[in-house]
Amino acid sequence: MRRKGLVLAVSAAPRTSSGTSDPTTASAPDFGNAVALVCRECGTRVPLGPSFACLECFGPLEIAYEFPEITREQIEAGPANIWRYAPLLPVPADVASRPNLEPGLTKLVRAENLARELGVTGGLYVKDDSGNPTHSFKDRPVSQALEAARAFGFDTLSCSSTGNLAGAVAAAAARAGLKSCVFIPSDLEQAKQVVAAAYGGHLVAIKGNYDDVNRFCTELIGDEIGENWGFVNVNLRPYYAEGSKTLAYEICEQLGWRLPDNLVIPIASGSQLTKIDKGLQDLIKLGLVEEKPYKIFGAQAKGCSPVSTAYKAGHDVIRPVRPDTIVKSLAIGNPADAPYVLDIARRTGGAVEDATDDEVRDAMRLLARTEGIFAETAGGTTLGVTRKLIADGRIDPAEETVVLNTGDGLKTLDAIADTTGATAVIDPTLDSFREAGLA
Amino acid sequence: MRRKGLVLAVSAAPRTSSGTSDPTTASAPDFGNAVALVCRECGTRVPLGPSFACLECFGPLEIAYEFPEITREQIEAGPANIWRYAPLLPVPADVASRPNLEPGLTKLVRAENLARELGVTGGLYVKDDSGNPTHSFKDRPVSQALEAARAFGFDTLSCSSTGNLAGAVAAAAARAGLKSCVFIPSDLEQAKQVVAAAYGGHLVAIKGNYDDVNRFCTELIGDEIGENWGFVNVNLRPYYAEGSKTLAYEICEQLGWRLPDNLVIPIASGSQLTKIDKGLQDLIKLGLVEEKPYKIFGAQAKGCSPVSTAYKAGHDVIRPVRPDTIVKSLAIGNPADAPYVLDIARRTGGAVEDATDDEVRDAMRLLARTEGIFAETAGGTTLGVTRKLIADGRIDPAEETVVLNTGDGLKTLDAIADTTGATAVIDPTLDSFREAGLA
Repeated sequence: MRRKGLVLAVSAAPRTSSGTSDPTTASAPDFGNAVALVCRECGTRVPLGPSFACLECFGPLEIAYEFPEITREQIEAGPANIWRYAPLLPVPADVASRPNLEPGLTKLVRAENLARELGVTGGLYVKDDSGNPTHSFKDRPVSQALEAARAFGFDTLSCSSTGNLAGAVAAAAARAGLKSCVFIPSDLEQAKQVVAAAYGGHLVAIKGNYDDVNRFCTELIGDEIGENWGFVNVNLRPYYAEGSKTLAYEICEQLGWRLPDNLVIPIASGSQLTKIDKGLQDLIKLGLVEEKPYKIFGAQAKGCSPVSTAYKAGHDVIRPVRPDTIVKSLAIGNPADAPYVLDIARRTGGAVEDATDDEVRDAMRLLARTEGIFAETAGGTTLGVTRKLIADGRIDPAEETVVLNTGDGLKTLDAIADTTGATAVIDPTLDSFREAGLA
Repeated sequence: MRRKGLVLAVSAAPRTSSGTSDPTTASAPDFGNAVALVCRECGTRVPLGPSFACLECFGPLEIAYEFPEITREQIEAGPANIWRYAPLLPVPADVASRPNLEPGLTKLVRAENLARELGVTGGLYVKDDSGNPTHSFKDRPVSQALEAARAFGFDTLSCSSTGNLAGAVAAAAARAGLKSCVFIPSDLEQAKQVVAAAYGGHLVAIKGNYDDVNRFCTELIGDEIGENWGFVNVNLRPYYAEGSKTLAYEICEQLGWRLPDNLVIPIASGSQLTKIDKGLQDLIKLGLVEEKPYKIFGAQAKGCSPVSTAYKAGHDVIRPVRPDTIVKSLAIGNPADAPYVLDIARRTGGAVEDATDDEVRDAMRLLARTEGIFAETAGGTTLGVTRKLIADGRIDPAEETVVLNTGDGLKTLDAIADTTGATAVIDPTLDSFREAGLA
């Protein structure tokens, strides 16, 4: 049985599911307040299923909800992780009781030392997602994909990845008791392979580049081998992407249920930025925060900056690039959500900017030195861009700004290894220490 | 001005402090409910100061408290980090308002998959301290040392370290706005040097081994160079060590304010195990948990197992060893708290056991595969020992057991790199995937 149609709209339900994709019947998967998939381009609605592209126009599908009244008190009474926001996500109400990694509610750090260095007087915060279980924001979207996989009766969680995602998927599957099979390019650094393989699922190295891996995965989904597989960033993508909304919810709740003036967010596919905007809109619509203007800024690495280039040129579409940067986790040359990112940056009065590899390294060191937060290169990119935006006044230093750190410096040691090390090497004597001139 | 006396009992206060060490006067440092340092051996009491050894008998000094009534509600209303337990620690009441890394309240994971594999029916939990800001339990003791350094007016935070501690100290100092200067042996692996140096303080590599580094640090404390320096694990050790009590508090609170039946804890210096016991006793004395028997088990790596060897031989003192194990973070050949560990294991009906390097690696993989927790080698040691204790009945599988994971697998990738990697390397074709035989 071939199921090539699956990658587009309503597909046959997998063997172990209820066999129906009508969300109104009792035996249908339970997605809480999510009611349908809707095409972001043409608005076509289809039932919730393992589909990611519109049959009418090939536009991306995303989750539509019918929210009941949801109160701050209700959320605050929930668990200390993303499941406190379950009513705002495509998950059943009892989701927190199922074994899962429980990501989220990471620290929103009031960065007073950093604010002083950058001249920010209106409040500067770092949302530090290195505190997630596998130390990147990826645990958020993967948690949503996992629930969708459970709902559709998939038995294997899968993805294509160049690093963070492979570990996040393998770890989530392990805790949940699902199988996992993740695909990477065979030339991936050994350290990243070890991390991804540590969780014991299948780690398959594909001879080729990341594009080859993706093409292979799409083929696999259409084949009977992949029949009971949930690819978090392919056939489960609409659910997966919703996980990033929780960053918006947490930031606003941690600020005392209000919107910041500015958010600076890294751009890989652009999905995270667009979903954070969606999350902020959810909160406004539900009356959980007071409506007020906010600006969203996107950050790219100079060596992979198609969105920033298009923004600066005033274009609505991007020209794909071949990435050449130390910021591997943002190195997507043809970001799927680029048009939405450009729209959001312009509509909110934000901007898209980029930082060179040297600026990224400098910003990593700045953040570590001032706040004790050792960020991944993606975090360095976001802070490097923030620095520029403050310096040229596009971010008003008297306003309140939140900068995202989406990953952990332990995962990108190579990026700073050549320039970071011992201040001095000395003999074990006081004289030798004095000669080093450090005290 | 030389201050050789400082390393023992009451020393001159540093220049920037109030100049008095009487905690009852208004200008004295504020240590909350802590009232004195008391010698663990002879019971001699001295005022709270930057001292760690008894002038009478050279025994270790530890913190004594006079606790008021403290309720569960009071603690539960506190911040979501270790500062909810401030009344039980040597810190001022407003400690949470000062810039600090806010460690603690890490996840207590109900390990259902692992319990099934090990045949545990009474409940099995992993206290996962890889969730701390610098991804090891060290953030807990360092947070206490930092407050002591502030109280004594020290301007530089320092330590000798072979890894985790150096990063924890440098990060804590950065956030707090103190200087840091940490000392490591010059042959430390480059990756660990990068992590320790990332936070921008001084990282000084000493030509010599860890013992040479320690000797140098003791000399430095007695010299005028070190006059305003707080060495977290030397002159601030009594405060530092108290941080591990919070593991006991959190475990009991997260279990719903009750004691588990068994705790399995790794042994490096032995301080963590003894302080967890002290923390459990605090909770019992304050009526925060109901008193009932509990057993404490200590875990060592076979290649550095002086305490386990002494335990098995029925000795009260250990014979120091030269460490030879992949478990670097537990590789202390002459653990200072060994006699107390032996006493606690025997008194509570526990035991001390060890795991070989292979057993450590196996346990790391077991934990990752079953629960999605990628532990440091120390975590593998603790789980490896737990496995043995369950297999031979010393831990009753019908009882409730808590296993500590004190660090993050990302920091000890080398330990499993040779044996962990891709399951298969294939061409990007379905046929090639089929041939690999994974689906």
